Amino acid sequence: MGLFSKDIKTMDDLFLHTLQDIYYAEKQIAKNLPTMAEKATNRELANGFKTHLEETENQIKRLEQVFADYGKPAEGVDCEAIDGILKEAKHVIGNVEDKQVLDAALIALAQAVEHYEITRYGTLIAWAKELGYDKLVRPLELNLKEEDATDKKLSKLAESKLNKKAA
Amino acid sequence: MGLFSKDIKTMDDLFLHTLQDIYYAEKQIAKNLPTMAEKATNRELANGFKTHLEETENQIKRLEQVFADYGKPAEGVDCEAIDGILKEAKHVIGNVEDKQVLDAALIALAQAVEHYEITRYGTLIAWAKELGYDKLVRPLELNLKEEDATDKKLSKLAESKLNKKAA
Repeated sequence: MGLFSKDIKTMDDLFLHTLQDIYYAEKQIAKNLPTMAEKATNRELANGFKTHLEETENQIKRLEQVFADYGKPAEGVDCEAIDGILKEAKHVIGNVEDKQVLDAALIALAQAVEHYEITRYGTLIAWAKELGYDKLVRPLELNLKEEDATDKKLSKLAESKLNKKAA
Repeated sequence: MGLFSKDIKTMDDLFLHTLQDIYYAEKQIAKNLPTMAEKATNRELANGFKTHLEETENQIKRLEQVFADYGKPAEGVDCEAIDGILKEAKHVIGNVEDKQVLDAALIALAQAVEHYEITRYGTLIAWAKELGYDKLVRPLELNLKEEDATDKKLSKLAESKLNKKAA
């Protein structure tokens, strides 16, 4: 998370910065998903990316509501972790020629993204509960649930036909 | 994952590069855990980091065995994602003064690391199975199991006393 660490004095500072981190991450992911959908050969995978783009746009709206309920403007903060994952995705998309291998690589990259989001939402939910921000818990849980479901779908795809074809 | 993407033509190339990616990540994590243990105030958290350092050293040995069984030298490859997460950890360690807030931040950072490893091991296991490398599955599964257990321990810590104290 791209914390302006010097500003972090309280749990509320930490909560807000982590919220800004995931907000930035979701927006970056929304930018990258159309290319991932376009580059995927397997139809189920391509459609999965398209569906997840819609979900991501909805998740961004939920986060904006969380910011509003928290009383702060919705804004992102640079996040080196998600930048690193997406940078790698771009390399792979540009350079792996074999379509089946590319599909397998895209799944792995998407799962790295999902797991980053899963851990961030898990953290934010725990902190929102502890800080007594009950209203913020539900939208964060909805986002977490969707990321978790997407990760499981990707695992199934990875374990079934895709890898077999590429091997 | 820090793939030399141009070299990736087959599923075996992808498997090897991802193995090199997690090998690099585990070694970086082993380097950073002593500082995390030292900076943690909560005794349970500090001990958890120490235990996880021992586990990590053992996981590195397992990976070296996986490389040997696969017939390739054990070597790492730069991984921008884990570098980003650990860079952030260093910022936080250097700049968050309140001990309880620092503990909460350390837990969140450690969980981001764990989730990165969980997704990488999950991917490697799926690929090893599909490629028919049965012998490589078991050590990768053992590493995954330990990362998963560590993540769950961290979640419990985050949800219990630590955050309450900091809030």
